[in-house]
Amino acid sequence: MSEFFEVLPPDEARATWWEQVTHRAGMETIRTVDALGRVTAQAITSPEALPAFRRSTVDGYAVRAADTFGASDSLPAYVQVIGEVAMGQAAVIEVQEGTALLIHTGGMVPVGADAVVMVEHTQEFSEHEIEVRKPVAPGENVLQVGEDVTTGAEILPAGHRIQPQDVGALLALGLVDDIPVRRRPRVSIFSTGDEVVPPDTTPLSLGQIRDINSGTIGALCEQAGASVQTHEIVPDHPEALYAALADALPGADMLVVTAGSSVSVRDMTAFTINRLGAPGVLVHGVAARPGKPTILGVVDGKPVIGLPGNPVSALVMFTLFGVPAIASLMEAEMPRQARLRARVAVNVPSVAGREDHVPVRLVDRDGEMWAEPVFGKSNLIFTLVGAHGLLKVPLNTTGLREGAWGEVVLF
Amino acid sequence: MSEFFEVLPPDEARATWWEQVTHRAGMETIRTVDALGRVTAQAITSPEALPAFRRSTVDGYAVRAADTFGASDSLPAYVQVIGEVAMGQAAVIEVQEGTALLIHTGGMVPVGADAVVMVEHTQEFSEHEIEVRKPVAPGENVLQVGEDVTTGAEILPAGHRIQPQDVGALLALGLVDDIPVRRRPRVSIFSTGDEVVPPDTTPLSLGQIRDINSGTIGALCEQAGASVQTHEIVPDHPEALYAALADALPGADMLVVTAGSSVSVRDMTAFTINRLGAPGVLVHGVAARPGKPTILGVVDGKPVIGLPGNPVSALVMFTLFGVPAIASLMEAEMPRQARLRARVAVNVPSVAGREDHVPVRLVDRDGEMWAEPVFGKSNLIFTLVGAHGLLKVPLNTTGLREGAWGEVVLF
Repeated sequence: MSEFFEVLPPDEARATWWEQVTHRAGMETIRTVDALGRVTAQAITSPEALPAFRRSTVDGYAVRAADTFGASDSLPAYVQVIGEVAMGQAAVIEVQEGTALLIHTGGMVPVGADAVVMVEHTQEFSEHEIEVRKPVAPGENVLQVGEDVTTGAEILPAGHRIQPQDVGALLALGLVDDIPVRRRPRVSIFSTGDEVVPPDTTPLSLGQIRDINSGTIGALCEQAGASVQTHEIVPDHPEALYAALADALPGADMLVVTAGSSVSVRDMTAFTINRLGAPGVLVHGVAARPGKPTILGVVDGKPVIGLPGNPVSALVMFTLFGVPAIASLMEAEMPRQARLRARVAVNVPSVAGREDHVPVRLVDRDGEMWAEPVFGKSNLIFTLVGAHGLLKVPLNTTGLREGAWGEVVLF
Repeated sequence: MSEFFEVLPPDEARATWWEQVTHRAGMETIRTVDALGRVTAQAITSPEALPAFRRSTVDGYAVRAADTFGASDSLPAYVQVIGEVAMGQAAVIEVQEGTALLIHTGGMVPVGADAVVMVEHTQEFSEHEIEVRKPVAPGENVLQVGEDVTTGAEILPAGHRIQPQDVGALLALGLVDDIPVRRRPRVSIFSTGDEVVPPDTTPLSLGQIRDINSGTIGALCEQAGASVQTHEIVPDHPEALYAALADALPGADMLVVTAGSSVSVRDMTAFTINRLGAPGVLVHGVAARPGKPTILGVVDGKPVIGLPGNPVSALVMFTLFGVPAIASLMEAEMPRQARLRARVAVNVPSVAGREDHVPVRLVDRDGEMWAEPVFGKSNLIFTLVGAHGLLKVPLNTTGLREGAWGEVVLF
């Protein structure tokens, strides 16, 4: 099977794969206080105008602007203070020519007034009279009705990840529940391998290793907004893998298989994905390191990923393909990854036509950020535990020289 | 009260404040699968060595390296294949001089063998004999016992935020529960103001606005790893505020009050914090915009923050002070904020001695990132909803010129 496939560069692999994915996660409605990080399933529009009444943006006096024209320190304008606007209540007294109401920030500007003089520009003259020492223009220090949001305005587009300020914006409009969001995509994760045993197996027998990938890939899914379904470890047997995947497919939005690292076992994954349904395997091998033997397939319009069993390869490849797939299942904007530029501390050789992702530690040297590769012979998970992020060595370079600037995607 | 306080630059304000905070969130133990994003309460060491047995890092043949010395394409070495190492099982057959065992990646290297020849460097000669066409050195393609982790090695330091790969590393060692982490700090949030009503109030009466700050500050707390306790909205009355804070203090790790925006109401917050206990208010005013009238205090060793009522100011200031405070309560490393450099699309004036945080939209122009300030007259929450992050105008500049490079902290 595999000889028919070319190894594709990561971006091309993703595009080839994604073209065939038609499945999407459905919609549900939730409360606004639970909505942080969720993805809007449709645009949300404002049911009302904000502010709903003219509000003062300063502490001062609500006046008719015309009464203050030409006012100065040497020639102040005099206005009668006929009352105070209580916070949280409608302003009931009307401002007439030559009069003013004391008002606080956020208070309702009364009928008749068209501006607010800041308290700093006034002085008490007598018990009920103030001097205004600076003129205000009509509308000054007043927020007009609907100036923040008009009725029917789109406040959040579809596919938007809800942030803290969005929570506030929804609450400001009284939108406290029935927020339409995408259901969390359900990702079914399968670790395979005769040598792999559940993490709570202690002590291990010789030859056994504990299942790492269900945990790391599950955590990445959780971070990306998916819900995780873990399954029993699958032995290296085609029928067992087929049965497990076929059983999970109807209830899952995406399947992830982390295979053993030997060639025969990887071929079992590709074989099983093809047997599961059309179009089956679309990408068999990615021009990247670590993680070259990654498999990308589609069954019933749903994405299926075959990851290498090596935990570092599996994590890097899932970041490259699985995390954006979860976003796409929700038709969400891509998550913004924290990344920074750093200088490379040693020569990092690569091969043109291959994209490398090298675990690095970040070290501040005299105010400049340097990336020190963390090399591990085994490429086991502990090289990543000590690292701060992955340095990307682009596709069309033969490496990065010591001192060159590179891009680090932070964990 | 407030006249005794100088307005402090943000970093100085934080230091002055934090010196007096002695309280810390306690410890609890949780399962590894629930540990993503939590903070280790103490260093975690490895209970065992990994790998626990010598593992092959390739598919090939386990051999005695000496048997391959001098082997080449023209003069291959011949070895007898006496069996295969089954995955997940102890290798039971011993490799003797002139013999080899077929082995898969991750398989246990058998007694007697000291290297693995990659299958690519061999050729089948007869049913039980192979040609080795390239020599291997002792130890080549073999991961030694403990090479990943030795028994007792520190795998995660105290104060570490647990990432996906850390979940995997813990599972690899059989550490599936009893993970010592900091309890989520409990943050009690109080919105105050006679004009503020619960978000589910519909329709509003004239003069009323819905409580936004409990929602946004709560969401920021949640993001930062805290648990949120929201309380009833407190009217603008010193006794009511005192009663509410005094009631919450024993059960909380931090108190946050978002005050009304008028000066009189802000003074009420400072007054109440001082009444609550010593040392009380430590910082009354920060050289930053928005958010200058921020109050930082300490009572019973616990941090207390008084935020301006304006939702943008409250959000920016809580990001500057509240989020790092939550990290400090857990003695955690500071969260790494996603930030990037962008060019400023218009002149952004500021004042030397003040740190500005300007909401910006990011726009890609010919591959270069530009930051376009989102100015809102009201500074209401909707200026932030449309923004991608905050552009920082440093303390000792008079602004950023159009085209200059600035730093944007992403939401």
